[in-house]
Amino acid sequence: MDKLSLQDPVFATYVIAATLMILKAVGMSWLTVVRMMQVKGGFRSPEDLRKTPLNPEPDPKQLKPDERVERVRRIQMNDLENLPFFLVAGFLYVLTEPSLLLARVLLYGYVASRLLHFAAYFTGQTHDMRATFWSVGSLILVFMAVRTLLAAFGY
Amino acid sequence: MDKLSLQDPVFATYVIAATLMILKAVGMSWLTVVRMMQVKGGFRSPEDLRKTPLNPEPDPKQLKPDERVERVRRIQMNDLENLPFFLVAGFLYVLTEPSLLLARVLLYGYVASRLLHFAAYFTGQTHDMRATFWSVGSLILVFMAVRTLLAAFGY
Amino acid sequence: MDKLSLQDPVFATYVIAATLMILKAVGMSWLTVVRMMQVKGGFRSPEDLRKTPLNPEPDPKQLKPDERVERVRRIQMNDLENLPFFLVAGFLYVLTEPSLLLARVLLYGYVASRLLHFAAYFTGQTHDMRATFWSVGSLILVFMAVRTLLAAFGY
Repeated sequence: MDKLSLQDPVFATYVIAATLMILKAVGMSWLTVVRMMQVKGGFRSPEDLRKTPLNPEPDPKQLKPDERVERVRRIQMNDLENLPFFLVAGFLYVLTEPSLLLARVLLYGYVASRLLHFAAYFTGQTHDMRATFWSVGSLILVFMAVRTLLAAFGY
Repeated sequence: MDKLSLQDPVFATYVIAATLMILKAVGMSWLTVVRMMQVKGGFRSPEDLRKTPLNPEPDPKQLKPDERVERVRRIQMNDLENLPFFLVAGFLYVLTEPSLLLARVLLYGYVASRLLHFAAYFTGQTHDMRATFWSVGSLILVFMAVRTLLAAFGY
Repeated sequence: MDKLSLQDPVFATYVIAATLMILKAVGMSWLTVVRMMQVKGGFRSPEDLRKTPLNPEPDPKQLKPDERVERVRRIQMNDLENLPFFLVAGFLYVLTEPSLLLARVLLYGYVASRLLHFAAYFTGQTHDMRATFWSVGSLILVFMAVRTLLAAFGY
């Protein structure tokens, strides 16, 4: 059977988890845009102080870091440190033909951990709480990578 | 038919777009190197002030941010926020067997949007202009991810 | 034959190299955690100064950059600029059906270059040395991407 068929339930599980995580990551960029428009600042390039339709009243303060924007950027940075590796590890993991149940637990568990991490970070919960959600996702990622590595060696 | 064959025109379209974007991303690293050599600075680690064949006359100023280097780093950061997700979303999207015409419009359209974003950012055009090019690419990415997600649910 | 079979020696080579690089990248996150716990600082968010079981004695100094943490973050940033592109370029490259010998030299050579880059950066060797290791890996990545791009055009 074609391993990369969307009719294959294990591969479809991966595709759902992967596209949700991609949309989440891209969502952080758009959230940064929304926040920059709300605070009319948090810009980074000198040319962003030019007068334009989207910035009719430029002000040098617009180039200063703004915590409401920076928070989203930190969340996005955390995504960049994790999601690209999940996307590839998850893909290779489903090629090892895991059971549907295990694939669902790991892949949807990862998605859930990242959404909870976002909620905790965005609302400024304690470092302990967001670290816990991050750790769950990271351990799922490590498990999938190690399992795939072993499979490549024939175990 | 083998979906991952380079003879398949839809998959070949993806491979061309993906490798161009990979080369673009790697190019930003090399451009950073070129700029650091031109300005003899923009370094980041304390050990970079040691006297070496490539840095015969170290100076503490070399660790200060230099806008000509920082601009390339910001462009690269924007790539990191976008390209890894495009690479996976585009791959999964071609597995949904879109028409060749649509695949070409989306994938090559994305490549064009990123090259224009680079040109606008590198030459310091207005925030509005580079935001427009970025938005076009980002919306293509969202479209491909949503389309693939729906396909995984059988739509 | 199934190109994405772990029994295929060329694909298995890719899977081994890819999972090792994924584990390396995730390892940088955990190393950051270890360093932050060792120095009890290097935090980034205002809420990280709240009193919690993992941070029983908060101190505003904990939000200042700490070089022992920042070094790992710079290494991780370098990973983010390189590894996601390697993971996709390597995958597409093995679809061009290279010889097993060449696949091993390139893929394992890349892994070796990144581990040496890490060792040089982590122990604070000269900029020249880590730049050399980085360049080797980057040129392997460029070679694989260009070769795959040519293959997509039928060469």
